[in-house]
Amino acid sequence: MWGGRFAAGPDAIMEAINASIGFDRRLAPQDIAGSRAHAAMLAATGIISDSDAEAIREGLLTILSEIEAGTFPFSTALEDIHMNVEARLKELIGEPAGRLHTARSRNDQVATDFRLWVREQIDALDEALVALMRALLAQAEAGPDWVMPGFTHLQVAQPVTWGHHMMAYVEMFGRDRGRFADARARMNECPLGAAALAGTSFPIDREMTAKALGFDRPMANSLDAVSDRDFALEFLSAASICAMHLSRLAEELVIWSTAQFRFVTLSDRFSTGSSIMPQKRNPDAAELIRAKIGRILGATVSLFVVMKGLPLAYSKDMQEDKEQVFDAADSLMLSLAAMEGMIRDLTVNREALEAAASAGFSTATDLADWLVRRLGLPFREAHHVTGALVAKAEAKGCDLPELTLEEMREVHPGITEEVYDVLGVHNSVASRTSYGGTAPEQVRAQIARWKEILG
Amino acid sequence: MWGGRFAAGPDAIMEAINASIGFDRRLAPQDIAGSRAHAAMLAATGIISDSDAEAIREGLLTILSEIEAGTFPFSTALEDIHMNVEARLKELIGEPAGRLHTARSRNDQVATDFRLWVREQIDALDEALVALMRALLAQAEAGPDWVMPGFTHLQVAQPVTWGHHMMAYVEMFGRDRGRFADARARMNECPLGAAALAGTSFPIDREMTAKALGFDRPMANSLDAVSDRDFALEFLSAASICAMHLSRLAEELVIWSTAQFRFVTLSDRFSTGSSIMPQKRNPDAAELIRAKIGRILGATVSLFVVMKGLPLAYSKDMQEDKEQVFDAADSLMLSLAAMEGMIRDLTVNREALEAAASAGFSTATDLADWLVRRLGLPFREAHHVTGALVAKAEAKGCDLPELTLEEMREVHPGITEEVYDVLGVHNSVASRTSYGGTAPEQVRAQIARWKEILG
Amino acid sequence: MWGGRFAAGPDAIMEAINASIGFDRRLAPQDIAGSRAHAAMLAATGIISDSDAEAIREGLLTILSEIEAGTFPFSTALEDIHMNVEARLKELIGEPAGRLHTARSRNDQVATDFRLWVREQIDALDEALVALMRALLAQAEAGPDWVMPGFTHLQVAQPVTWGHHMMAYVEMFGRDRGRFADARARMNECPLGAAALAGTSFPIDREMTAKALGFDRPMANSLDAVSDRDFALEFLSAASICAMHLSRLAEELVIWSTAQFRFVTLSDRFSTGSSIMPQKRNPDAAELIRAKIGRILGATVSLFVVMKGLPLAYSKDMQEDKEQVFDAADSLMLSLAAMEGMIRDLTVNREALEAAASAGFSTATDLADWLVRRLGLPFREAHHVTGALVAKAEAKGCDLPELTLEEMREVHPGITEEVYDVLGVHNSVASRTSYGGTAPEQVRAQIARWKEILG
Amino acid sequence: MWGGRFAAGPDAIMEAINASIGFDRRLAPQDIAGSRAHAAMLAATGIISDSDAEAIREGLLTILSEIEAGTFPFSTALEDIHMNVEARLKELIGEPAGRLHTARSRNDQVATDFRLWVREQIDALDEALVALMRALLAQAEAGPDWVMPGFTHLQVAQPVTWGHHMMAYVEMFGRDRGRFADARARMNECPLGAAALAGTSFPIDREMTAKALGFDRPMANSLDAVSDRDFALEFLSAASICAMHLSRLAEELVIWSTAQFRFVTLSDRFSTGSSIMPQKRNPDAAELIRAKIGRILGATVSLFVVMKGLPLAYSKDMQEDKEQVFDAADSLMLSLAAMEGMIRDLTVNREALEAAASAGFSTATDLADWLVRRLGLPFREAHHVTGALVAKAEAKGCDLPELTLEEMREVHPGITEEVYDVLGVHNSVASRTSYGGTAPEQVRAQIARWKEILG
Repeated sequence: MWGGRFAAGPDAIMEAINASIGFDRRLAPQDIAGSRAHAAMLAATGIISDSDAEAIREGLLTILSEIEAGTFPFSTALEDIHMNVEARLKELIGEPAGRLHTARSRNDQVATDFRLWVREQIDALDEALVALMRALLAQAEAGPDWVMPGFTHLQVAQPVTWGHHMMAYVEMFGRDRGRFADARARMNECPLGAAALAGTSFPIDREMTAKALGFDRPMANSLDAVSDRDFALEFLSAASICAMHLSRLAEELVIWSTAQFRFVTLSDRFSTGSSIMPQKRNPDAAELIRAKIGRILGATVSLFVVMKGLPLAYSKDMQEDKEQVFDAADSLMLSLAAMEGMIRDLTVNREALEAAASAGFSTATDLADWLVRRLGLPFREAHHVTGALVAKAEAKGCDLPELTLEEMREVHPGITEEVYDVLGVHNSVASRTSYGGTAPEQVRAQIARWKEILG
Repeated sequence: MWGGRFAAGPDAIMEAINASIGFDRRLAPQDIAGSRAHAAMLAATGIISDSDAEAIREGLLTILSEIEAGTFPFSTALEDIHMNVEARLKELIGEPAGRLHTARSRNDQVATDFRLWVREQIDALDEALVALMRALLAQAEAGPDWVMPGFTHLQVAQPVTWGHHMMAYVEMFGRDRGRFADARARMNECPLGAAALAGTSFPIDREMTAKALGFDRPMANSLDAVSDRDFALEFLSAASICAMHLSRLAEELVIWSTAQFRFVTLSDRFSTGSSIMPQKRNPDAAELIRAKIGRILGATVSLFVVMKGLPLAYSKDMQEDKEQVFDAADSLMLSLAAMEGMIRDLTVNREALEAAASAGFSTATDLADWLVRRLGLPFREAHHVTGALVAKAEAKGCDLPELTLEEMREVHPGITEEVYDVLGVHNSVASRTSYGGTAPEQVRAQIARWKEILG
Repeated sequence: MWGGRFAAGPDAIMEAINASIGFDRRLAPQDIAGSRAHAAMLAATGIISDSDAEAIREGLLTILSEIEAGTFPFSTALEDIHMNVEARLKELIGEPAGRLHTARSRNDQVATDFRLWVREQIDALDEALVALMRALLAQAEAGPDWVMPGFTHLQVAQPVTWGHHMMAYVEMFGRDRGRFADARARMNECPLGAAALAGTSFPIDREMTAKALGFDRPMANSLDAVSDRDFALEFLSAASICAMHLSRLAEELVIWSTAQFRFVTLSDRFSTGSSIMPQKRNPDAAELIRAKIGRILGATVSLFVVMKGLPLAYSKDMQEDKEQVFDAADSLMLSLAAMEGMIRDLTVNREALEAAASAGFSTATDLADWLVRRLGLPFREAHHVTGALVAKAEAKGCDLPELTLEEMREVHPGITEEVYDVLGVHNSVASRTSYGGTAPEQVRAQIARWKEILG
Repeated sequence: MWGGRFAAGPDAIMEAINASIGFDRRLAPQDIAGSRAHAAMLAATGIISDSDAEAIREGLLTILSEIEAGTFPFSTALEDIHMNVEARLKELIGEPAGRLHTARSRNDQVATDFRLWVREQIDALDEALVALMRALLAQAEAGPDWVMPGFTHLQVAQPVTWGHHMMAYVEMFGRDRGRFADARARMNECPLGAAALAGTSFPIDREMTAKALGFDRPMANSLDAVSDRDFALEFLSAASICAMHLSRLAEELVIWSTAQFRFVTLSDRFSTGSSIMPQKRNPDAAELIRAKIGRILGATVSLFVVMKGLPLAYSKDMQEDKEQVFDAADSLMLSLAAMEGMIRDLTVNREALEAAASAGFSTATDLADWLVRRLGLPFREAHHVTGALVAKAEAKGCDLPELTLEEMREVHPGITEEVYDVLGVHNSVASRTSYGGTAPEQVRAQIARWKEILG
C-alpha cells in the first residue's frame, strides 16, 4: 500500500506511479532470455566482439541464478526489470555491459519479454485445459448412460445422459484450446530489432534472434512492433471466454449440490464446512471459480480502455498492460486447476439424477415424435395429441408410461402398444441417436473421438 | 419507446419484454435458408414426402420475396422471426407447413440462423478491411520516403517515413483479418439437428444440412449446440480489437488536423464546417470512429455478463445476444467504410511533416549510433557524448547538423566529417534498413509484400 | 440496417455515421421546452421582440403537436432534432425563427435537452421502484412469519421468514431510489446560456431559463456545461446497480421455480409454456430481467470508454451518449415493471418453504447460542458440543428436536428440557429479535416503517 | 505467483484459491476496531463479563501494535484476517477470546470491516480532491485573463481564458466530491449484529456498536446487511467518473506539452527525460494517469460481474470484492496526488496560448453577435455576413481585425468603426460576461466562490 500519502513529496509520488519493478520482475527470465539472444546475434553479426558477448552471457546466467535463488537486489529506483538487470550486469562484468543495449531499446525489449511471457502462459493453460478435459472425460466414461434431466430455463425438458452433459463442456474447453492456439500462432512474431520505433542502422539479423527465442519470424513493421498489444488483448479475450465456460459449470455445481437437487456431492477438499453443522458442505471453490469471470473480464476491459485512442508509437499508458494480464492468467490457471480437482473428486448421485429426469413428463417429446413417425401426424398435430395425453396423466396423477393403452386410445385411436417403447427415460435417451445426440452410443463415440484427440 | 408505461397491463409488459421480432427479423434470410436446407434433408431421408418438401420450398421462396419487397406482415404477437415465418408458411401452403418443424426446435434453429448471420458479417467485414488496407497502401505508396516525426509519448523521438506509419496500420488490420478468419473457421459448424437439446430419434442427416448451408461439419454435442454463444463472443472480441485500432488512427487524424500540427487535411466530405468560420473543418467522422470502440466494447461486455453463470442448455437470457452483435457489426462496418473514405481523401502536408521531423534534435540517436559504430564507443558512453553535443547545439540555438566539426571535436576529438551523413532526417530514415525498419527501401518491400497478399 | 454498403459513396457513409436524428428525435419534447424557455428569456431581456417571441412560441407549439400526431416530417439530411425543429419553425413562421438561436448554440442546447430527458427518466424510474417496493411489501405482509431457509452458498444455513427475505429487496430498491435522487439533485443545473463553450456577450438571464425548465440553478462554468456528461454516467451507474439487484431477485425466482425447489409458482402471464408439456412453466420474464444487467452495464462501459481522454470542450464523440442512455433507461423501466408484475402474481408454496427450512439441522446455531446463553459455554466450545449433537442426530437419522433429552445429556450433561424451545424452526425465527433480525415482530416493524416512508 | 502449478495437490490448490489473508490483511485496523466495539457492547449488555471484555480489549490492542510493528505472525492456513486475529487473541488471552464471537459471524464482521475501510478511503480521497482543486484554483488565479483557444473537436473555436479552463476542472472535481459524499452517507450504516444472516437471539445493542464505529445507524435487514455490496459498487462508480475527469485533463496535458502546441511545460519531477536528448521531456505521469481509468473501470466491471445473479445471502463469490476496491482506491489516490503535483508545477506558456487563440478567425462569432446586436440582423443572416468577411480576410491573408472598415462595408454597409471593439481576442473574452462565461470578471467571481467553498 502506498502509505503516508500526503506527506510524500512529488518525487515519492512520481516514483510510486512510475516504477514498474514491483510487478515486471516476473519478466526476469524472459528478459534474460531476450538479452542472451540479442547478445549472441550482436556477436554473430560482428557488432560486438565475441569476448564481450561471452562476458554478457556469463553475467546474465549469474543474474538468472541470483533471481532464482532470491538473492537478486531489486531496486525501485532503477524503475523496471530491464534497468535492474542492466545495472547488475554492469556491476558484474563492467564495460561490456554497456554494449548489450546496442541496436535495442526498452520499447522492443519489453514487447519481446511480454510476448514470451504470454506465450508460456498459453502453453501452461493448454496443459491445464487438457487436464480438465481428461477429468470431464473420466466422468463421461463413468456414466455415458446415466440418465439426468436436460434443462431449458432450469426446467426439466428432456432426459439426457450424464456423459452427454460432461461432453458438452469438453467441446467448450476444446474450443478454448483452439482460441489460445490461434492467439499463440498470431502473436509468435518477434519485436526485437524494432529498437525505439524506427528500426536501426546496425546490421542486425532479426531472423536469428527471432529463431533463437522460438518465434516464427520477426515483426514486419518497427512502429507496429513497439505499439502493438493485440496479443495481450486477444489472450485476455480468449481467457474471458474460457472463464465464462467455467462460470457456467461452477453455477451448475453450486445448484447441483444444493439440498434440493442433490445431484452431486463435492469432496471435502473442495468445499468448506461449518464447525457447527458437520453435514454442511459449502461449494466455496465452485463459487470462487464462478466469480473469476468478473476479474478476468475486468482485466480485459481495463486493457481495452488503456489502448483506446493511443497514438503511435509507444506511450507510457501501455505500462498498465502487464498487471492485468498477469492477474488474469493466474486467475484462470488457478480456476482450471481447482475445477479439474472438483470434477475428479465429484461424487454423482445417480438415483437423484434419474428420479429428476423421470419427473415432469420429460418424455412428452418422444411421444410426439412417435406420433409423427409412426402415425404420420404433422408435427403440430402430434403436439396437440401429446398435450392431451399429458393432461390426462396429470389429472390421473401419474406419469405418461402409467397411462393404459385404452386411456391413450381415447385421445388418439391409432396409438399402439409400441408407444411404450419410447416413454421411459432410458428408452428416450437411447433413441436420440442422431449425430451428437444424447444416446449412450453417440456419447461413447464422442468420448472415443476426444480421447484420440487428447492422445 | 415503450410508452404508456404504467397503464400497460401485465400482458403488455410481458409482450414488450419477451418479443424479439423487433430485432430478429434481420435473421429472416438466414431463417429461410436454414428451413430450406432442413426441408430438403427431411425429404432426402424420407421423413417427409417430396411433395411436402416442394410445397415448403415454394412457400419459403414466396416469403423471402415478400420480406425483400417489404410486404411481409410481421406480427409481434408471433414473438419471433421463426414463428412469423412458420405462421405465414401455414397460410400459404397449409398442412405441409406443419411438417417442417419435424426433428427441429427453435433452439437449434436460432443458433443456426445466428451463426449464418455472423458468418456473413465476417465476410463483409473482411472485404471492408481489405478496402481500408488498400487505402492505407495507396497512402504508403504515395509517400514511402516522406519524412515525418516518429513519436513516443507524443514527443518527437526519431524521424520515420509516412509510408512506414501507414504500413503499421496495415499490419494491425491484417491481424484483424486473421482473427476474424480464425473465428469464422471455429464457428463454422452446424447446430441444426440438435433439436431442443438432446438430438432426435428421427433418422436425420446432419452432414447434409451442414453442407447445404456451407458449414464444415455438424456440431458434435447437441447440448453444446444450443447452449453455445462462443462464436458471438469471439466475433465481438475481434471486433473490439479492430475498433481499438480504428480509435488509434482516428485519434491521430484528430490531432494531425489541428491548427497546431497541420500534418493532414481531411476532405470536406468527411468533416463538417461552420456556417460562420468557413475555414473550419471539424473531424466529425474521425471523432465518431474514435468513439465506436466504446459501443463495441460495451456490446462485448454485455454478452459476457449475460452468459456468465448460465446453466445448460438454453435459457431465455440468451435472447439478449442478437441486438448487441447486430449493433457491433453495424458500427464496425460503418467505421471501416468511413475510415477508408477518410484515408482515401486525405491530403498530406509534406512540408509540415518534414519540418516537425527535423525539430527537437530528432537525429540524436543516429549520432549516438554512429559513435558506437565508427568510434567503437560503448552504447552508454556514446549516449553521454551525444547529450553533450545536443546541449551545445541547444546553447547555440541551432540543430545538430549546424554544429561545426570543430565544435563537435571539442566534445569528442574522434568525430570526423563523415558524421554529417547521419544527421539529416533523410539520412536518418535512409539508414534504418534493418528488417521492418523505416528506411524507404524497407517500406517499399513491405508495400510489395502486402500488395501480393491482398492480390 | 445500413445496407448496400460498399456501393454507398462517401457522402452516404458520412451521412450514415454522422446523423443522429434516427435516435435523438426522442428529445423533441425537451428540445421544444428548452427553446420555449430560451425565447421567453430573449424577449424578457429585450434581445428579441415580444412579437418574435410570440411567433416562436406558437410555431413551437405547432411543431410539438405535429410530433405528437406523428405528422412531423423528420429529415435525415437535417442531421439532428435541433436542426429539424429549427428548419420546420422557419417554414412555419419565417424570419423570426432565425432569431431563436441568438445567444445559444447546439452545444448548450443538446446538453440541456439531454439533462431534461434523463431527469424525467429518473422521475419515472422512481415511480417504478416504488411500485415494485409495494409489490414486495405486499408479499412481506402476506408472510411475515412463513418460515423458509436462509441460504449461504445456496446451502441451508438458518431459518428465516419469507417477509424478511422480501424486505431485504425493499432495502436494496430503497437505496436505488436514494442513488437516483442524489443523481437528480446533482444534475439539476442548467447548461443553457453556455453557448458554444465560452458564454455570450448578449445580456441573457440564465437564472430565468434555469427556473423555467425546473433546474435549481445555471451551471457555473460554460466550458464544463457543454463538456460534461457526468449526469449520464451517474445515471447509468445507478441503473447498473439497480439492474444488479434485479438480477439477484430474478435468479432466485428462476431457482425457486424449479421442480427441485418448488418454492414459488410464477403466474401464466409472466412465464411461457410448451405446446407439448402443459405443466411446464418457463420463467422467461425472470431470465430476461436477469440478463438486463448485461445490457445496462454494457451501456455504462460504452459511455465511459467514449468519454475517456476527451479534451474540452465539445467533441463529436459525445454524440454516442444518447443511444446508450436511452437503451439503458428503457431496459431498466421494462425490467422493473415486469418484476413488479411477477412479484404481485407470485404464488408462494408455504409448505415447500417450511419443509426446506426444517431440513439440514438448520437450527444448530440456535442450539449453540442456547448453550452459550444458558450454560455459559464459550462460543467456540458451544460449537463443539453442537457438532457432536448434530453428528448423533445424523447417525440416528433424525433431526435435532427428535433427540431425546437423555441422548443430549450424553453429549453435555447440563442440557435441560428448555433446549427444545429453541430447536423448531418457528422458535428459531421467533427468537431472532435483534434489530433487523428475522423474527416476525422485527419484520412487521420494518414493514410498518417502509409503508410510512412510501406513504 | 502461484508456482509449481501442476505438482500442487488439491489441498494446495484449494488453499490458493480460497485464502484471502494475502489481501484482506489490509483490513486489520478495521477488524480490530469492529471487535473492540463488539466486545464493549457485549459487556454493556451483560452478554459477557466486564473482565472478559477488558481482556479482549487489551489483547486486541496488543495485536494492533504487533501489526503496526510488522511482527504479527500472519498465517495462510488461517485463511483470512478475522481468523488470524481471533487465533492470535486466543494465544494472548486464552479462554475469553472464545467469547468475542458471540452474537457475531464472519459475514457481518467482514461487511463491517469493509465498510469502515471504504469510508476511510472516501475521507482520504476527499482531501486529495480538495488538494487538487486548490492547485487548479492557484493556476486559475494566476491567469484569469490569459487568453487561450477554446476548442471544439480540437479545432480552435473561440478564445477563452486559462482561468476559465482550469475552473472547468474545479467544477468536475467538485461534483466528484459530491458523489463520494453521497456514497459515504448512504453506506454509513452498520451491518454488525446481522450475524450470519438472520440476526441473533442475544440481547445485543446494535445502536451502541453502530455509534461506536461512527455509523449513523444499524442496517435494518440482516439478510441485506450481509448480502449487500452496493457501497463498494457505488464507490467504484464514483471513482470511475473521477478517473474519467483525470483522463481528460491528462490528455490535455499530453497534447499541450507537444512540440506542436507548446502550451505548457511539465516540471522535471513529473516527466522523464532521455539520456540522449536532454531537451526531451516525456509526460509519463500524465500518460499513466490517463491510463488509470482503464484499471478503475475494469475493477468496477469486475465487481458488477461478480454480483450479477447471486442469490441471497452470502456467497463466497463476494470474497472477490476487496482486491478490486483496494486497487481502484490506491490507483485513484495516486493519480490525484500526481495530478496535483503536475498542476502545481506546471509552467504555462502565455505567448503560445495567446498566439494560438488569435489564429483561425476565432472571433468570428463575436463579429456575428455584434451584427445581431447592433445592426439587428437575424442570427442566421449575421452568420452569412460573417462568413463573407472571413472569406475576404482569408483571401487577403490577414485576420479579421486587419480588414479595413471599407472592406467590411463592401460586405455589409451598416458596419461601423465600433466593430473593431469586438474583434481582438482580449475584447472577445472580456465581452462574454454571461453567468459562467469566460470573461475574466466571471472567472474571478467563480474563483472567489470556490475559495469560500473550500475554506
